[in-house]
Amino acid sequence: MRIAIIGGLAAGPAAAAEAKRRAPDAEVVLFEEGPNISVGTCEMPYLIGGVIDPSVDLVVVSPAEMERTRGVEVRIRHRVTALDPARGRLTVEALDFGSTREEAFDRFVLATGARARRLGVDGEEAAGVFTVRDLVDTEQIRRWLDTEDVRHVVVAGGGYIGLEMAEAMRERGLRATILDPKGRVLGGAVACEASDLMDRAVRGAGVLVRPERATEVLTDDRGRVRAVRTDRGEIVGCQMLIVSVGVEPRAELAEAAGLRLGDMGGVTVDDEMRTSHRHVWACGDLVQIPRAPDGRRVLWPLATTARRTARVAARNVAKPGSDRFRPFAGAVAVRAFGVEVGSVGLSMQRAKGAGLDAFATDIRHVSRTKAFPGASPIDVRLVVERRTGRILGGQVVGAEGAALRANVLVPLVIRGSTVRELAEDLDLVYNPPVAPAVDPLKVAASRALRSL
Amino acid sequence: MRIAIIGGLAAGPAAAAEAKRRAPDAEVVLFEEGPNISVGTCEMPYLIGGVIDPSVDLVVVSPAEMERTRGVEVRIRHRVTALDPARGRLTVEALDFGSTREEAFDRFVLATGARARRLGVDGEEAAGVFTVRDLVDTEQIRRWLDTEDVRHVVVAGGGYIGLEMAEAMRERGLRATILDPKGRVLGGAVACEASDLMDRAVRGAGVLVRPERATEVLTDDRGRVRAVRTDRGEIVGCQMLIVSVGVEPRAELAEAAGLRLGDMGGVTVDDEMRTSHRHVWACGDLVQIPRAPDGRRVLWPLATTARRTARVAARNVAKPGSDRFRPFAGAVAVRAFGVEVGSVGLSMQRAKGAGLDAFATDIRHVSRTKAFPGASPIDVRLVVERRTGRILGGQVVGAEGAALRANVLVPLVIRGSTVRELAEDLDLVYNPPVAPAVDPLKVAASRALRSL
Repeated sequence: MRIAIIGGLAAGPAAAAEAKRRAPDAEVVLFEEGPNISVGTCEMPYLIGGVIDPSVDLVVVSPAEMERTRGVEVRIRHRVTALDPARGRLTVEALDFGSTREEAFDRFVLATGARARRLGVDGEEAAGVFTVRDLVDTEQIRRWLDTEDVRHVVVAGGGYIGLEMAEAMRERGLRATILDPKGRVLGGAVACEASDLMDRAVRGAGVLVRPERATEVLTDDRGRVRAVRTDRGEIVGCQMLIVSVGVEPRAELAEAAGLRLGDMGGVTVDDEMRTSHRHVWACGDLVQIPRAPDGRRVLWPLATTARRTARVAARNVAKPGSDRFRPFAGAVAVRAFGVEVGSVGLSMQRAKGAGLDAFATDIRHVSRTKAFPGASPIDVRLVVERRTGRILGGQVVGAEGAALRANVLVPLVIRGSTVRELAEDLDLVYNPPVAPAVDPLKVAASRALRSL
Repeated sequence: MRIAIIGGLAAGPAAAAEAKRRAPDAEVVLFEEGPNISVGTCEMPYLIGGVIDPSVDLVVVSPAEMERTRGVEVRIRHRVTALDPARGRLTVEALDFGSTREEAFDRFVLATGARARRLGVDGEEAAGVFTVRDLVDTEQIRRWLDTEDVRHVVVAGGGYIGLEMAEAMRERGLRATILDPKGRVLGGAVACEASDLMDRAVRGAGVLVRPERATEVLTDDRGRVRAVRTDRGEIVGCQMLIVSVGVEPRAELAEAAGLRLGDMGGVTVDDEMRTSHRHVWACGDLVQIPRAPDGRRVLWPLATTARRTARVAARNVAKPGSDRFRPFAGAVAVRAFGVEVGSVGLSMQRAKGAGLDAFATDIRHVSRTKAFPGASPIDVRLVVERRTGRILGGQVVGAEGAALRANVLVPLVIRGSTVRELAEDLDLVYNPPVAPAVDPLKVAASRALRSL
């Protein structure tokens, strides 16, 4: 049996290794058009900011290691240009040789991932405009910062990557401005709807958040970014622009192969990660997967869920029916400017968007016993289904203990547990140096329970 | 309706307030033999060590506040010497007046709590020998430290309170030695069976842990402790001895009233916290309550579960059948000498004691992405039922993020979730500054899953 894995950033290598483990007799070939496989992306802002030692290698597994230790054949700099599942054929372009040929496989796993969204405005191709998606971006950004006279950086998008990049710029001693139409940070995957702690911290670090959208990139006579024009007609001078306005699935290959796509443009898969063609599975940022609170299949381009989809796809490509994906909670955390945000499940905005009858309960409590040195405010929002008391999601924000507190909500959201269970049955730890007598999560749940 | 609540340390006041809230027309009377009600005990070591500001008042609610804001009649310095449930009578001694009389009530809630165990050795009544249980102890310890020439303190018992007290002594610049027959710390409620991180930290802080038991307290000519003799025949000189060898239920009143006691000496209650007499409920450290992994009813003298039992008792005393106690996970945390331990559910030792066919999986991972500054080792032990893969318990140890990580195990232990669910379905947060790509809990669960 020959298995082709297409895409080598994160899900692809995980799927390839697991497929080979589960089907040791199969020939597993991993195709990647770039020069690296298995790259850690979440560290990039910290590498750029100099927080992580610049000598750290974000390549988790090299192609040679992958071949030697996992028994997977790796072809970097090979672009798959077409997939014909009916005939069991891939068209592969060897980028370093300029040659293209067809190859026969029995089963396929698509892991082409996602690409950074662009602003789609004039001047966006200027030198000094970057997205943060892969090692090439990271290297280019570092080189730009090291060689150009950068004093002020504009970050388009106040999501978690935008926030991390703004912090990275401050770490390097540069001025930074975030442009976000909401005039606030963290309105997306990491939801922070009710707390002002992060916004205060951002402002306190001297980062301006402007309620604007970039409409044009202005350049100097050498084609370098020199300013951004916004939808309010303002001109914001800068020597670098980071575009972090989300990602979109790289579904062109799947679409051309006739595979069904979902309402968000991702590839449609069943719980075994099988696409609409029985010999093709897909995984990673490319696919729409079911979220726990309402079962809706959505794009959720995150490493934690990507790894899981990769494993499920690989196990089933090795032996159909051997594993299935169970709805995910959607836990994300960010730490920037001394404040953590942990966010799980549906935000209030998404719950409403999903047509759920939900309400939100917001409380402020403390990270440790109030009298204990280091105790700091913690804000909790719980999003609760009115009829059932089910916890649909939650957000925890504070200087310490916020991200890990959010983790407690993961099994609750997945199991459909109620605020009553959190408020009354869960004996979460209490000890003055680590948590107050009643944990902030339980305080929020008790409050929500009274509102039911 | 007249309701008597007997015992005012923690569970009693909580039960009194909740009973009055649920039965506003009832007359609720709270009896406490000491001078205070509603006292926070967990802060005491930090107050003694000077970590918490000495002006902090550990009385959460004063008697006057309790009366004014909760509508509960409070009688401090009143000792209940007998309970006759059949006749609906209490015998109460007013300590400040030397008078004793009978009072009639319709329903009773026993919340007499627990007392510190003693060593039961000669010389234990010497001046300078203390337990750490209430405000009086705390005051006496502080006075002793402030007025005597204390240089070396022996702590009998390496449980979490012993550990916190040893740290408090170091905070005050004193030498400290822990005597524990196991020669290790944390072998009880807070289990730390497989990690050496805490033991190293204790040693690193200059605290000696001796594998010995105190067999005699030696005194000077003024009756003050001057040394402890151990079961190895050693003499350990000291100017203060802290006895922290656990607590035992104060069940004498219940026993004399003819109420049924459990195998551990606690009062037997059903899920409504009702004792063997239909007009008497009990709560707090006094009762045996069902733990989640095996349903066994045990003593679990902890504030978090005491509060819950108090609420259940109070709701049912106000309206029988209105609430029930659900098995608890048993989550406890301690932080001392820069190391945290979070412990949930059954230790391996307790699982074996319960006759469960369990195995333990031990892993060492990191608190954050390894390359991120501040990342430190985290040890996880999972205790797993062999036949089902159910998580029976877990221990998390590390310099940061250990106590709160343990909380994730609370809903899993309560719901009987398996290591498969933790390893594969829970998308715990990942972000370099707060957690590594695969959370230590998930790493341990994956390892355990492979052992199944």
